[in-house]
Amino acid sequence: MTENDAEHHKKKMQKRKELQTELVASKTETKGLVMVHTGTGKGKSTAAFGLLFRNLGYGRKCAVIQFIKAPEWQTGERKMAEHFPDLLQWHTLGDGFTWDTQNKEKDIASCAKAWEVALRFLQDEEVSLVILDELNIALRYDYIAMETVLEGLRQRPSMQHVVITGRNAKKELIEVADLVTDMNLVKHHFEAGVKAQKGVEF
Amino acid sequence: MTENDAEHHKKKMQKRKELQTELVASKTETKGLVMVHTGTGKGKSTAAFGLLFRNLGYGRKCAVIQFIKAPEWQTGERKMAEHFPDLLQWHTLGDGFTWDTQNKEKDIASCAKAWEVALRFLQDEEVSLVILDELNIALRYDYIAMETVLEGLRQRPSMQHVVITGRNAKKELIEVADLVTDMNLVKHHFEAGVKAQKGVEF
Repeated sequence: MTENDAEHHKKKMQKRKELQTELVASKTETKGLVMVHTGTGKGKSTAAFGLLFRNLGYGRKCAVIQFIKAPEWQTGERKMAEHFPDLLQWHTLGDGFTWDTQNKEKDIASCAKAWEVALRFLQDEEVSLVILDELNIALRYDYIAMETVLEGLRQRPSMQHVVITGRNAKKELIEVADLVTDMNLVKHHFEAGVKAQKGVEF
Repeated sequence: MTENDAEHHKKKMQKRKELQTELVASKTETKGLVMVHTGTGKGKSTAAFGLLFRNLGYGRKCAVIQFIKAPEWQTGERKMAEHFPDLLQWHTLGDGFTWDTQNKEKDIASCAKAWEVALRFLQDEEVSLVILDELNIALRYDYIAMETVLEGLRQRPSMQHVVITGRNAKKELIEVADLVTDMNLVKHHFEAGVKAQKGVEF
């Protein structure tokens, strides 16, 4: 790198720094966020567990309520709850995929029960982060009413963060959300014949 | 729900189950994956930490090497390393944003040093998961050569998973990756004036 290059780079970065400083200064609010992870790509629940990782690092109380997903499925993430008995509450309350249960009435009843548990945490000032895993699936099939969920979100403590995951997030939820990320599948190893593996998918 | 509805739902799900069973049976391979999290949305590093969460749950050895990001930044995720001294090695080896360092030569030297540390883990059979956080940024600015990275990935243990995060993943990396997710920003709280918060951004 010539001296000229180095000088040019420095000047460019100084200008960029000014813009960044302005940008950061313009953001002043703090609040509990509603975060939605949707899309067909991998990373929706996984990024929610990353937020869990981050919050547990600060010693904050967190709760995970899993819709659809069944307690019979052994997952690495659930094993982690054993490491943080005082901070992390984990409730896996689904019955499995709709094509496994083949019973709509049972699916609806399970979602209602899971929502009841979710509400307990959504009303608890001490809980910093609530993950409602796969709730989008329950909402999509109208297994739980949108208005019920929106009401629960509205009435929660003002600094509590909530993450809602699952494909096909509904418009009404996107409207009230503070953050929406669409995890978009560019390339997936399933297409190349690789199967679901411990530590990757579960 | 009428009896007819329930019966219709059941038949539909039985058909779907057949297709699913076929699909699952077609995937037989297991291998260490190269996973790339890119895009402008939130969730790239966060989903990598979710995979960490999952693998630590299984008691597997993991390593995180952070490019660009500086050790002065206090983060919840790094505090978690203290909980798993035998399983998790965490190295934050960047100097901060390019607009903070304003020194290209220093940035390049830091990337070379971080890559050296990364290689140690990429050559260790006992490490199940290696996270190369923000490596895409280093590659984008040619602070580290693509061929160096590809060579390191090729020579690693065959069952080791690697996650590479950061915006603007390069074409050559996408080509060799097994999984690529583009985290697409649909809506972000920064745009609404909310600032970076503990437990959300860091």
